[in-house]
Amino acid sequence: MTKPTLSRDPEVLLEAATTGNRVALARLLTMIERGGPEAEQVAALAYRSPHSYTVGLTGPPGAGKSTMTDRLITAARAGWPAVDDRPAEPLDQVAVLAIDPSSPFTGGAILGDRIRMQDHATDPTVFIRSMATRGHLGGLALAVPGAVRLLGAAGMPVTLIETVGVGQMEVDIVGAADTTVVVVTPGAGDAMQANKAGILEIADIFVINKADRPGLRETRRDLEGMLELSMFGDWVPPIVETVAQDGTGVEELWGEVARHRAHLIDTGELDGRRQRRLAEELRRVLSARLAIEVETLAGGAPFAEQVAGLAAGETDPYRAAAALLDR
Amino acid sequence: MTKPTLSRDPEVLLEAATTGNRVALARLLTMIERGGPEAEQVAALAYRSPHSYTVGLTGPPGAGKSTMTDRLITAARAGWPAVDDRPAEPLDQVAVLAIDPSSPFTGGAILGDRIRMQDHATDPTVFIRSMATRGHLGGLALAVPGAVRLLGAAGMPVTLIETVGVGQMEVDIVGAADTTVVVVTPGAGDAMQANKAGILEIADIFVINKADRPGLRETRRDLEGMLELSMFGDWVPPIVETVAQDGTGVEELWGEVARHRAHLIDTGELDGRRQRRLAEELRRVLSARLAIEVETLAGGAPFAEQVAGLAAGETDPYRAAAALLDR
Repeated sequence: MTKPTLSRDPEVLLEAATTGNRVALARLLTMIERGGPEAEQVAALAYRSPHSYTVGLTGPPGAGKSTMTDRLITAARAGWPAVDDRPAEPLDQVAVLAIDPSSPFTGGAILGDRIRMQDHATDPTVFIRSMATRGHLGGLALAVPGAVRLLGAAGMPVTLIETVGVGQMEVDIVGAADTTVVVVTPGAGDAMQANKAGILEIADIFVINKADRPGLRETRRDLEGMLELSMFGDWVPPIVETVAQDGTGVEELWGEVARHRAHLIDTGELDGRRQRRLAEELRRVLSARLAIEVETLAGGAPFAEQVAGLAAGETDPYRAAAALLDR
Repeated sequence: MTKPTLSRDPEVLLEAATTGNRVALARLLTMIERGGPEAEQVAALAYRSPHSYTVGLTGPPGAGKSTMTDRLITAARAGWPAVDDRPAEPLDQVAVLAIDPSSPFTGGAILGDRIRMQDHATDPTVFIRSMATRGHLGGLALAVPGAVRLLGAAGMPVTLIETVGVGQMEVDIVGAADTTVVVVTPGAGDAMQANKAGILEIADIFVINKADRPGLRETRRDLEGMLELSMFGDWVPPIVETVAQDGTGVEELWGEVARHRAHLIDTGELDGRRQRRLAEELRRVLSARLAIEVETLAGGAPFAEQVAGLAAGETDPYRAAAALLDR
C-alpha cells in the first residue's frame, strides 16, 4: 500500500484544507512559515477568508501559559458563553498557534509543554501547530497574521496564540490578537518584568495564575496600581485569578474573553483593530520588500566599492548610501 | 557676565572639539544621537578622522560592568602596556560611551553608576558620555559608530563602550568594538544567560568579576566548556578573574586587552574587522533610508486605499505592497 501523495499546489491544498484535511492545512502553514514566493501564493488565495477570532496569551516564562492554553482549549470547545443580550454560540473547532522563540536554548521546556498539549492532538476538533521563526525577512510577525487568515479559511472560528518569553516579538505578535491575555504569577518580579517589556500595555485581560501561591495580594495590588496609572477607553482590563493546573478560574477567564469580544463587536472596535492590524501587516510586507532590496544592494560590486571608499576615508556612510540608492 | 554662546555649525563645533573643547564635542555627540540631517552633517565632516580603539564591555545586569569601566579608565590612563616586541604606548586621553537601554524602567541603577563614574568627570583626560536611543531610525546601532568616529576626530585614542543588559542591541553595539569584553559573575545562571543572548559568541576576552564570591570554579568550568564547543582562529579568548570593587585583576584584564589589540594589528585582522563593520554600518544606513521610505508610503492616501482593500477582502498584503512599490 502506498501512501497517497498530496499535491504541492497551494490551490489544491487550500481546497483540501477547507474541507477538513489537516495534512493539507499543516503543509500550507509550513509554506507561510517559510516565507518567500510560496507564502505569497498562499496569501493570494486565502485573503478573502472568514475571520478566526484570535486570543493571544503572553507573559514571563514559567507563568504557566501552556497549561493555561491547554485549559482554554477545553473552555473554548464549550463555545462562547452568553454575554448580556448576546446568546451563547457554539464553537465546533479550536486552533492553537504556539509561537516558539527563535533561540534554541529555551527549547526544552516548550517541547515538553507541546507534548503535554498533545492530549488534544487526537481530538479532531482541535488543531495545534507550533510556529518557529525560520529566519526569513519579516519573520514571525509577518507569518502569524498569514497563518491566522489561513486558519480562518480552514474554518477555525477561534485561534489561541501562545508565545513564550517577554520580548518585542511577543508584544508584536500577541498584541495583534483580537483579545490579549497577559499571564503573571504571584511574586513581585513577574508583573514588573512584564511591565518592563511593555506587555502590560497590550493586555485586555490580566491573569494571575498559580493564584494559590504566596504573594497573590501584592501582585494584584501591583497590577491595580499599574492600571490606575494607565489610560483606558470603555474597557478596563479585568484581573482574573486562576490555578491552571487544576482548572480553577479558567471558566471565568474564558467568560472575560467572551465579554471582551462582545465589547469589541458592540462598539465596532473589532473592525477598527483589525483594520489597524492590516495596516501594520502591510507596513511589514513593505519593510520586508525593502530589506530584500538592501540585501541585494549589499551583495553587489558598487556596495563593495563604497565600503572600500569608507575604509580609505574618502566618503562617509550617508554619502555612500545616497550614492548606492541613486544608482 | 553672559555665557559665551557656542556655534551650532557642525564645522565650527568640530574644529573646537578637535582642539579640546568638550562642550563642542558633547554638542556634536547629541547631534549624532538625535540622528537626521544634523547627524549626517557631522558624519560628512568627521569621516576622515584617526581611529579611536574601541573596547566594548557587556554582560548581564549586575555583573559590575560600570565599576569595571571605572577601573579600566584608570588602567587605560596608564597607557598600553608592552606586548612581546611591541613597546608600551602612552594614552593621553580616554573616552567612555555608556550606552543606556531604551527602557526607562531599568534606569535607576544606571543613573547611580553614572554618578559614581563622575569621579573621573573632573579629570580633563577622561571624557564620559551616556548615549540613549532617541527612537530615531537606525537607533543606537547607527549612532555609536558615528560617535566613535567623532571621538577619534576629537583625538581620543581609546573609547570604552559599556552597555547595560543582554539583548540584540548589546550584541550589535559591543560586538562592533575592536575588542569585546564579556563580564559575568560566579553563579551558574549568569554565563548561561549571556550564552542564551548570544553575547558569548562575540567575546574576545571573558571576565569573571566578583571572583571572590562562591561559584567561581563552576562558572569558569561553564565558560571553558563553551569555549571548547566553539571554533576559533588564532585567538582563543582568555578568562580573567577580577574583583572590580577593589581593583583585583583589572591590570591583568587591561593587559589582555592590549594583547588582543597587538594580535589584531599584527595579523592584519584589525583592518579586516573595521572594514566588515563599515559594511555593516553602510547596510544599516541603507536600511534606515528605506525605512523612511516605508514611513512615507504608509502616510499616503494610496496606502490607506490598499488597507481599505485588504479590509474589504479585495486584495492580499503582498499584492497591496507590490501595488504601492510599483507606483
